[in-house]
Amino acid sequence: MTLILSNEDVDKLLTMPECIDALEEAYVELAEGRGITRTRSDCITPTKRPDAVYGLKSMDGVCPKLGVGAVRINSDIVTFPKKGNTVVREKVPAAPGNRWVGLVLLFSVDNGEPLAIMPDGVMQRMRVGATNGLGIKYLARENAETVGILGSGWQAGSQLMAACAVRDIKEIRCFSPTRANREAFAGEMTEMLGVEVRAVDQPEDAIKGADIAMCSSSSLDHIFFAPWVKTGMHMTSIKRPEIEMDALRKADRVVIHNHDEKPIHVMTRDLANAENAKDQGWNSVGDLDFAKLPTLPDLIVGRAQGRQSDREITCFLNNIGLGYQFAAVGAAVIKKAKDGGLGHELPTDWFTEDVHP
Amino acid sequence: MTLILSNEDVDKLLTMPECIDALEEAYVELAEGRGITRTRSDCITPTKRPDAVYGLKSMDGVCPKLGVGAVRINSDIVTFPKKGNTVVREKVPAAPGNRWVGLVLLFSVDNGEPLAIMPDGVMQRMRVGATNGLGIKYLARENAETVGILGSGWQAGSQLMAACAVRDIKEIRCFSPTRANREAFAGEMTEMLGVEVRAVDQPEDAIKGADIAMCSSSSLDHIFFAPWVKTGMHMTSIKRPEIEMDALRKADRVVIHNHDEKPIHVMTRDLANAENAKDQGWNSVGDLDFAKLPTLPDLIVGRAQGRQSDREITCFLNNIGLGYQFAAVGAAVIKKAKDGGLGHELPTDWFTEDVHP
Repeated sequence: MTLILSNEDVDKLLTMPECIDALEEAYVELAEGRGITRTRSDCITPTKRPDAVYGLKSMDGVCPKLGVGAVRINSDIVTFPKKGNTVVREKVPAAPGNRWVGLVLLFSVDNGEPLAIMPDGVMQRMRVGATNGLGIKYLARENAETVGILGSGWQAGSQLMAACAVRDIKEIRCFSPTRANREAFAGEMTEMLGVEVRAVDQPEDAIKGADIAMCSSSSLDHIFFAPWVKTGMHMTSIKRPEIEMDALRKADRVVIHNHDEKPIHVMTRDLANAENAKDQGWNSVGDLDFAKLPTLPDLIVGRAQGRQSDREITCFLNNIGLGYQFAAVGAAVIKKAKDGGLGHELPTDWFTEDVHP
Repeated sequence: MTLILSNEDVDKLLTMPECIDALEEAYVELAEGRGITRTRSDCITPTKRPDAVYGLKSMDGVCPKLGVGAVRINSDIVTFPKKGNTVVREKVPAAPGNRWVGLVLLFSVDNGEPLAIMPDGVMQRMRVGATNGLGIKYLARENAETVGILGSGWQAGSQLMAACAVRDIKEIRCFSPTRANREAFAGEMTEMLGVEVRAVDQPEDAIKGADIAMCSSSSLDHIFFAPWVKTGMHMTSIKRPEIEMDALRKADRVVIHNHDEKPIHVMTRDLANAENAKDQGWNSVGDLDFAKLPTLPDLIVGRAQGRQSDREITCFLNNIGLGYQFAAVGAAVIKKAKDGGLGHELPTDWFTEDVHP
């Protein structure tokens, strides 16, 4: 049977510590060349809505040790509205019922069969959080206990879950441009984490004195600046442009997620020619040579050095997502789903065939 | 509703002339930069079966004019057995029920929604046939009436369907290494096409005197050789290595499908280091500069010149498949499926989500 899971199912099946463990094991495989990942690609065209573009995004990865190959697909109507002082990348829920479209398909490395199909939302959020959590685990001070976070969205929640999973966090301060959002977020997260999350009115108030400074926004502009960097701090970001270059330069060590410099961009001719479509935030970090920076998998297997003293300033840049993350986390979800009786079971025959393709 | 179609459904919905028309229209869009396609990628790892590898292949394409984006995925257990004198690439039906795994997912460019999911088999075969059919339409002599084909498999059938759709074919001769296969194929195709297909004992007997020489094998070695090339002939191949370089050099004009030189190959370290896994048949055509050859879309929009006389020797090399083909042909299938009442309708909500991914 091929399992159709919902985001609610995945949410029930996947805890943050499990997600972190799954990725940590899988990154060892990746570092050793036994796991593989195919650079994300974005196909971008016009769509009927004139202020939007259509994006068909995909990324693949295979982890033979865990027995799973994954393809993650997003079919997005994307807009670039201005929020506060920054331009953000915002997907419009344009599918029937005002919904977004993201899917993860999981396959068996042993016999090729389609194991499961599910929306990507919960899994993609958890793997971003877990990845930055591993950055904290391997780079932040052991005694780090205060977090400042910029952002109060869906991603920010899993960032905090991950921080609390790997360090004994005592205090969290949150800033985002809209007061109502940050206050609601602070309330929800305080309850979920059992740690007080306080909404503050200025980004500096969130970051000041924080052992761990987290950026978790949808901004295509910088939101974290050099004057905020302090001795012993660990900085962490879920997207390249968030931390300005001068802040990165203050770090004693910067670790990135992967050496894929940017997604494979394929665009219609007109869009490619239009300047605003050209830069999707990937070109904003100018002179940092990503090819020379160590990656998180390098760090996990000890090929790259972690923090050397409590005074060091460290940074983990989650510069690009990997299809491989979905293979790793997907394997964990499937393992538990088999016992859970969750989801819809469809005949595998619907997704296989009796002809040589 | 998201439609789950079977190969049988697609077979009922898609005729070869419709498939050719859909691709012809879509290739105009591609040539004009209004349609886009993302280079196929192959992720290759070990699998449990020691003489095989696991391959997770994907390709994407979007045709805004037809309103459809497509992702085609193959999850294959691949072996490289020797058949006769040639090494072939053979996918093992290892999924439950001895089945293969290939899927096409179709999405709306207008609102992103998942329109349909189906096995890729019938569609992929038809689009290969139709693509080579367009090569014949634009390059073979108008009065071409004899076909010689090397190969008697699943692909060979759609090659003949396509040839008969674009030219008034009177005679077909077929060779493949196994007598029983070629004879069964000849019988079936004679009945289907209403044109006599004759099985012959030597490849030369199939090709001699043919106006159109078709290669349609799973071979990773050359199967068509220079001495067989004759004045006025059109040669056509579904894979790069089939026609040897000396034969290609005899052509007055060679047109390829696309400038993607080869798939994006991502392999585990050990496989990448192993010579036999390195060359999947893509490096076999040594000194032909594909970047300078015109493509089929160029030819269709008149940017590249077609045949100039009955004496010219022409060649169409279907050098690589495109995700874009599945968007084009998928749009045609969906359009007809809506009237047909075929397939299983699943709630679109199963494949969408209420969270921003």
